[in-house]
Amino acid sequence: MKLGTLKDGTRDGRLVVVKRDNSVYATADGIAKSMQEALDNWDEAEPKLQELFEKLEAGEVDGEPVDVNDFHSPLPRAYEWIDGSAYINHIVLVRKARDAEPPETLETDPLVYQGGSGHFLAPTEDIPLPNPEWGLDFEAEIAVVMGDTPRGVSKEEAGEHVKLLMLVNDNTFRNLIPGELAKSFGFFQSKPATTFSPFAVTPDELGDKWDGGRVNLPLETDYNGEFFGDPEAGPEMHFSFFDLIQHVTKTRSFTAGTILGSGTVSNEDQSKGSSCLSEKRMLEKIETGEFKTPYMQVGDTVKIEMKDEEGNNIFGTIQQKVVDAS
Amino acid sequence: MKLGTLKDGTRDGRLVVVKRDNSVYATADGIAKSMQEALDNWDEAEPKLQELFEKLEAGEVDGEPVDVNDFHSPLPRAYEWIDGSAYINHIVLVRKARDAEPPETLETDPLVYQGGSGHFLAPTEDIPLPNPEWGLDFEAEIAVVMGDTPRGVSKEEAGEHVKLLMLVNDNTFRNLIPGELAKSFGFFQSKPATTFSPFAVTPDELGDKWDGGRVNLPLETDYNGEFFGDPEAGPEMHFSFFDLIQHVTKTRSFTAGTILGSGTVSNEDQSKGSSCLSEKRMLEKIETGEFKTPYMQVGDTVKIEMKDEEGNNIFGTIQQKVVDAS
Repeated sequence: MKLGTLKDGTRDGRLVVVKRDNSVYATADGIAKSMQEALDNWDEAEPKLQELFEKLEAGEVDGEPVDVNDFHSPLPRAYEWIDGSAYINHIVLVRKARDAEPPETLETDPLVYQGGSGHFLAPTEDIPLPNPEWGLDFEAEIAVVMGDTPRGVSKEEAGEHVKLLMLVNDNTFRNLIPGELAKSFGFFQSKPATTFSPFAVTPDELGDKWDGGRVNLPLETDYNGEFFGDPEAGPEMHFSFFDLIQHVTKTRSFTAGTILGSGTVSNEDQSKGSSCLSEKRMLEKIETGEFKTPYMQVGDTVKIEMKDEEGNNIFGTIQQKVVDAS
Repeated sequence: MKLGTLKDGTRDGRLVVVKRDNSVYATADGIAKSMQEALDNWDEAEPKLQELFEKLEAGEVDGEPVDVNDFHSPLPRAYEWIDGSAYINHIVLVRKARDAEPPETLETDPLVYQGGSGHFLAPTEDIPLPNPEWGLDFEAEIAVVMGDTPRGVSKEEAGEHVKLLMLVNDNTFRNLIPGELAKSFGFFQSKPATTFSPFAVTPDELGDKWDGGRVNLPLETDYNGEFFGDPEAGPEMHFSFFDLIQHVTKTRSFTAGTILGSGTVSNEDQSKGSSCLSEKRMLEKIETGEFKTPYMQVGDTVKIEMKDEEGNNIFGTIQQKVVDAS
């Protein structure tokens, strides 16, 4: 099934079930007020939401027409947002771009950082740019929403803790990264508010494309109205979501609604383009000796979506414009 | 006023107002169910909670007797937990302990990390130790709870965003830190669930001891029933909470209920003892050439509290025992 969160003036919005073709939605009245409330009581809420979804699909419930501008990120705020960096090609390229070496444990020990989770941007919300010299970049990713997850989950057990999937734009201030990482405490200032796709879907919506903790579909990014990349999200995800769950649960447990990201989707095949400006810039540097594409400036736009093999837009579209916030 | 959260079987517990002498509490019925709900509606809830507190103080409301074992951390889970490291003496000692250099910007650019916030330990809850070789340490700190805080707050404006203060035990697996920081993405696995004091108080409860974003009182730690440290929390806090708020709001805003920590309280005067084992171990190494005090093992206990000049226990006591979780 497909879920979303309508903006309704409250902090956490109103939970709705969305028809598979993204045409209409029905509010989850009497089941759960918000996405967090549904996740907090998932075993009880999930079958009721599923039933409503099936009625909506069958036309037995009249829906309201979807306007994605009315949708917030599925969780407008979350208790944790943890982002991995599971695509080796991305790590190698962006570290090269800032003259840093990949860690020695690149292929054996996953990279994850704890992100800010108190305020996410809505899927079509403008991205505020306080200072163009901070080097604003987008990063197109996939994320899972976890249910209650205890400490010490093995990758074999991890699948049962994945309740929903969605897309991410992990907005980043590239030029603030070196100073932050030099202090070794993480990305803090270099990560402004993150954006998620309008809709979150249960894993079964992906059919056999959800396989072993990877999503075997291309993730499409357009930049300023033109193709920017459509790398395959599955094969080159070196650490699967199941590996990442095993990794993050080594020393602690997680509450329902914890979001875990894949990191920027990236393929070695350059014909697939990129999912962030930094990679494109590094490829330009390697080829021509200089960075050509600037980071995002006021007015630039980014669009991120994922289609199934029949061309259906699974998660709805992240579509954002950069605005002056100086 | 003084607030707390009673364990009631729900995820977020039940908000209560606590008498200044910690003897009795009254539930905040009709004002807010949980601490988060109160913080989400602080302007409306705060005067009502204050009124209830004054009635409790005046004996106009009968309270129930306080047993701190019935209390959860004031926020059993929070949307963000950000921890600073504002005491220079601590940074210098713990980096020396792991053969790392302090950052060049030690005195000009605050260190903060984004912590896990989906699951906190209760103030008297056992600390699970999955593996004694991970080097479990306590870290006694102070934290503020922020209200809604926009991007770009100056240190001069920061005070109005501080709604509550509490104490922290920032549990840490010391031996997992080097591997995590080597990857430069932050502490992730080296920080298990954090513990907070039973009670959170409004800044006015500290009177003139809350001054310029610092708490001018000693923070007392006992280890295995013996004195371990009582460093002054104010004078050597190089970056005040107001500095830290200015720092963290550079690139994003924060939702009500965001927790911001001071980092381990530490004084240069060694007669004041320490607030974590790592500092004590480093001082032993400097003096004798070897680390003597081991990290926490099953059965070890830690107690953290702060008293005002009249000896009143302001935040209640964090009192925890390490238990086997292998």
